[in-house]
Amino acid sequence: MTKKVSIIGGSGYTGGELIRLLLSHPNVEIGQVTSQRYLGKFVHNAHPNLRGQKLIKFTSPDQIQPCDILFLALPHKTAAQDIERYAEIAEHIIDLSADFRLRDAAVYKKWYGEDHAASSWLERFVYGLPELHREELANAKYVSGVGCNATAVNLALYPLAAHNLIDHVVAEVKVGSSEGGNSHSLASHHPERSGAVRSFAPTTHRHQAEMQQELGISQIYFSATAIEMVRGVMCTAHCFLKDDIEEKEVWKLYRKEYKGEPFIRLVKDNTGIYRFPEPKILQGTNYCDIGFAKEKNSKRLVVMSAIDNLMKGAAGSAVQSMNVMMGWDEKTALDFPGLHPI
Amino acid sequence: MTKKVSIIGGSGYTGGELIRLLLSHPNVEIGQVTSQRYLGKFVHNAHPNLRGQKLIKFTSPDQIQPCDILFLALPHKTAAQDIERYAEIAEHIIDLSADFRLRDAAVYKKWYGEDHAASSWLERFVYGLPELHREELANAKYVSGVGCNATAVNLALYPLAAHNLIDHVVAEVKVGSSEGGNSHSLASHHPERSGAVRSFAPTTHRHQAEMQQELGISQIYFSATAIEMVRGVMCTAHCFLKDDIEEKEVWKLYRKEYKGEPFIRLVKDNTGIYRFPEPKILQGTNYCDIGFAKEKNSKRLVVMSAIDNLMKGAAGSAVQSMNVMMGWDEKTALDFPGLHPI
Amino acid sequence: MTKKVSIIGGSGYTGGELIRLLLSHPNVEIGQVTSQRYLGKFVHNAHPNLRGQKLIKFTSPDQIQPCDILFLALPHKTAAQDIERYAEIAEHIIDLSADFRLRDAAVYKKWYGEDHAASSWLERFVYGLPELHREELANAKYVSGVGCNATAVNLALYPLAAHNLIDHVVAEVKVGSSEGGNSHSLASHHPERSGAVRSFAPTTHRHQAEMQQELGISQIYFSATAIEMVRGVMCTAHCFLKDDIEEKEVWKLYRKEYKGEPFIRLVKDNTGIYRFPEPKILQGTNYCDIGFAKEKNSKRLVVMSAIDNLMKGAAGSAVQSMNVMMGWDEKTALDFPGLHPI
Amino acid sequence: MTKKVSIIGGSGYTGGELIRLLLSHPNVEIGQVTSQRYLGKFVHNAHPNLRGQKLIKFTSPDQIQPCDILFLALPHKTAAQDIERYAEIAEHIIDLSADFRLRDAAVYKKWYGEDHAASSWLERFVYGLPELHREELANAKYVSGVGCNATAVNLALYPLAAHNLIDHVVAEVKVGSSEGGNSHSLASHHPERSGAVRSFAPTTHRHQAEMQQELGISQIYFSATAIEMVRGVMCTAHCFLKDDIEEKEVWKLYRKEYKGEPFIRLVKDNTGIYRFPEPKILQGTNYCDIGFAKEKNSKRLVVMSAIDNLMKGAAGSAVQSMNVMMGWDEKTALDFPGLHPI
Repeated sequence: MTKKVSIIGGSGYTGGELIRLLLSHPNVEIGQVTSQRYLGKFVHNAHPNLRGQKLIKFTSPDQIQPCDILFLALPHKTAAQDIERYAEIAEHIIDLSADFRLRDAAVYKKWYGEDHAASSWLERFVYGLPELHREELANAKYVSGVGCNATAVNLALYPLAAHNLIDHVVAEVKVGSSEGGNSHSLASHHPERSGAVRSFAPTTHRHQAEMQQELGISQIYFSATAIEMVRGVMCTAHCFLKDDIEEKEVWKLYRKEYKGEPFIRLVKDNTGIYRFPEPKILQGTNYCDIGFAKEKNSKRLVVMSAIDNLMKGAAGSAVQSMNVMMGWDEKTALDFPGLHPI
Repeated sequence: MTKKVSIIGGSGYTGGELIRLLLSHPNVEIGQVTSQRYLGKFVHNAHPNLRGQKLIKFTSPDQIQPCDILFLALPHKTAAQDIERYAEIAEHIIDLSADFRLRDAAVYKKWYGEDHAASSWLERFVYGLPELHREELANAKYVSGVGCNATAVNLALYPLAAHNLIDHVVAEVKVGSSEGGNSHSLASHHPERSGAVRSFAPTTHRHQAEMQQELGISQIYFSATAIEMVRGVMCTAHCFLKDDIEEKEVWKLYRKEYKGEPFIRLVKDNTGIYRFPEPKILQGTNYCDIGFAKEKNSKRLVVMSAIDNLMKGAAGSAVQSMNVMMGWDEKTALDFPGLHPI
Repeated sequence: MTKKVSIIGGSGYTGGELIRLLLSHPNVEIGQVTSQRYLGKFVHNAHPNLRGQKLIKFTSPDQIQPCDILFLALPHKTAAQDIERYAEIAEHIIDLSADFRLRDAAVYKKWYGEDHAASSWLERFVYGLPELHREELANAKYVSGVGCNATAVNLALYPLAAHNLIDHVVAEVKVGSSEGGNSHSLASHHPERSGAVRSFAPTTHRHQAEMQQELGISQIYFSATAIEMVRGVMCTAHCFLKDDIEEKEVWKLYRKEYKGEPFIRLVKDNTGIYRFPEPKILQGTNYCDIGFAKEKNSKRLVVMSAIDNLMKGAAGSAVQSMNVMMGWDEKTALDFPGLHPI
Repeated sequence: MTKKVSIIGGSGYTGGELIRLLLSHPNVEIGQVTSQRYLGKFVHNAHPNLRGQKLIKFTSPDQIQPCDILFLALPHKTAAQDIERYAEIAEHIIDLSADFRLRDAAVYKKWYGEDHAASSWLERFVYGLPELHREELANAKYVSGVGCNATAVNLALYPLAAHNLIDHVVAEVKVGSSEGGNSHSLASHHPERSGAVRSFAPTTHRHQAEMQQELGISQIYFSATAIEMVRGVMCTAHCFLKDDIEEKEVWKLYRKEYKGEPFIRLVKDNTGIYRFPEPKILQGTNYCDIGFAKEKNSKRLVVMSAIDNLMKGAAGSAVQSMNVMMGWDEKTALDFPGLHPI
């Protein structure tokens, strides 16, 4: 029996990806998709790739009706304010904002600058990254989204962190322009943004809170640079290990920790062009590709990971989490392999 | 019962797209994929997006075994030389090169500069564009591929040509770098090709032969310009009509001629950003989007069309033709809706 | 003796180019540069490439003081409203907007939709394209700017038009995002604009008025497509000639008409990558490169031209016109040869 | 009196930049420019931006004649083989390859894998970075070029290294495709290289030798990632300082060390888009822009630097070094301020 799924805030980029994925999902039927900006218009007015798909009109958030699963794709700090109301509408909630990612209200306040609007709900949510929380998700009713940059870093480092191998790590991500959503500004104006290599967060990026929480380590030094790209996150993590480890051991570790993971691919070839992960061939896919290079005569291990920020870093992980939560095949609606060349 | 499909020449860009599509096709099983350059390597060495999909190794063209359907994705003039041999291997052949697109050996010689190597086979092939040849394809055994630029032009102009409305037409296409295949040269070297707006064929492009054949008109003036893009063809066709026609009539005509076509979308909005066709949101899809603008007080009708050159302009139309030829649902394996933003 | 030059509206893209050029001009000294948006800030806040150059602060337009030459780089319809006041401030005025490009107030009204605010001034202005109006400019006090698209088309077609050889012509330009100035919108938002091939003006572009005026021909069919590029205009003009002409004759004609022109280069090579004009290597230069290809057995002559829209299409032609008007070496401050690769 | 300058190996990208700069240099006259590949052709066949400049034909390296200053722009390991011969041709030599950058033959062998072909010459060369070696350059006859990546790192870190403040540092550079020169390969083929975020040297890049030599520190962890860009290097250096230092002190240090440097700009604004260095507005310029961000409650100082790899990272520094060596104004021929937008 198909489940009815609605989306609050469906005109943004993650909202669009959710609609795209859910339209091809055999176990769900899309109920309502809300948008204040596009009220009464068809979804393809906001998401031109959906032209010719099932005709859906954006409705008002005020007219939302009961459904089985409710996705919230709202600006940060908005979902928390109305979470009680949303919980009355649907048994299952998946929130893609940053509102319910952190378990500790004090940590939330530290990074987001104000008290959490619904702190008692924090413990009811499970962080929506199946690779790290599959069992909890299977029993969850409420799932948080993931930070896109945090996801690239967390999946790159998890096997090392789980074995307490990291002394400290410099994680640098290169990101595309879709990370900023669809609100335009002078900084996103094409003549200014095109060809940019822009250090927009050399220090102090909020996703660090998610990394520290999920990896359980504090010595993470994070920087983010915007580059010429629309979709994609590329993480280069320079890990200074507590002890020198041979490459062979690193292989063993990653293979073991990610064994059977449907969306993790280890990419480390000796020849060819795509010897390490690259985000461009992941566009539209739910993969996180991971590779590494060990520096000789040094404790530095460089771990590289690549994702599509709107997929594995947002809508893809959300749908994957839904699949786990609902007991469906985890890969459902997430089988697009990506394109090459692109 | 699934059919066994093999591909001769599977390491190029259209070969890669064929493999991607066929892997998700429920009615077929991939038999062999040949490549001399990548002999013995896995397909993901040539097509990195296929990493983690079914493991297939490239085999030698000499070791090709009988199968139900044989795709030929070879350099031009190669398929024709061995067509007799291929016909012994498979009952159905779909050739993606230019070798069997033209029905008239004299026309072939005029545009390709030499005698056709197997001219008696020209009449056995059907031009693989279902929108124009669906019935013949349903009864075909041998299908030719389509020229990517020709396809953008032919689908843009077909309704007008079919009703004999065109006096003459200037068709200009803007194309991406993947049109040139995966053979590198100084012209395709990134520092040279990046940001180019390069008039590589202001006159005398071979695809004109396919346009004249398929549209039945001779007054086509064609030019091609390479722009900064990997995938995509954008056609802007300036049609000088025999008589002035109102926009309303043009709408009616296109709606009627393309009624029920699963991969043609008419795109002509009054508001929004994507008011006319654009290739970027078509990457990976089999759509041909078509729009138009009528100039006031003039006989000029500007018709715009956009496709993904590797899909609707090559592998997509080939699989669509296979579906028609085999009596399967025409849309099978071609349902990817495309991405936005991208 | 150096002349004092001020700029009204110096925070936009053409304003920035004017400042860059004037800073290196030995005959002028920059007086004031006004901006309401950046009032009190340094010019490098709007134009980051000017960091470390002479320190200039934006002043208020209200505080403009007398000077020798006044550049107006204002939004369309703004200059005309205050032209009397500006004429009291400076003996020489160069206006980069569209306000004084057309000589006929009725034509202005037709294309710009309202009565001209200072129609008596139209005849006092000279169209600021030295290649077509050098003698008038030498005696001018008031110079209009040029439309960037119009300039690419006019310089491509002038030799043919001057000899009355054109029956009709389809002129299609591919343009970069800087043509839209520095006002951001959803259409210019990087994820939307990136990789676009967008038919923003398939018909009815205002620059046609300038083409008809300057070329003296009416059968111009114009379309504009935005492509992935920041700076640049590439024009592909499909000329249907009254009579068939050999390529040799075309060469002769263009060589004769553009003999001695310092910023026109004929580009038509038989080998190499850059056989025809391309805008990317013209960034920052004042060149207009022109090439052509004659179709065999046809009356079509394809003429290609490329410019930097902010230079030859705006600030460059303005400074060149100033040089002519003031009796200075026409090439002064315009000697940057452009970069390769880029 | 003008000096005669010749270039051995003038058809590559750095050769092209040398020609562009020398053509506008009032103190030099270009003698010969050699190229085996383009022998007998005009320089604009290799460097299309130079069309219409002074006509120069490529000559054979065998026919090189005596001159005052000789630039060598050859593949690595080539200059060293013939250095004796070149020294007979010209009193002053500036070599842009890696052959004479390292002072220690043993270090050379370690990084380049073989014995140096002319190790006795190593001590006669001065490393061609005026910011670090101005006095030696003033007395030099032989100047080495600089590694582009090394230059971005060295100029970013020099003030910290000079004061012995660095414990260890992770330096990551993002680079454009022109770094690879003009030899094409499948990796540089546009469909493959376009949009890449490619970890081509996560560890073990040869430029580390130059960093260690010039900065006098060994704890440098270097990685290089190729991104979508033609020209430019962006360095993000994560410095772990021996002691925590306030931002104010960092400012003081950099201001003092780079006081009066004509091509170093400190870029660290609180508002605006270009708050930190960015390579795109440096294209064609000789600037190295440097900025930094201090992480609170941590010993990490992130230093960012940006250059044009073909200019400050190659031909620009070479011409600047020539100016110093010859006693000319250091800025001569290097005054292009860069473009915006671009």
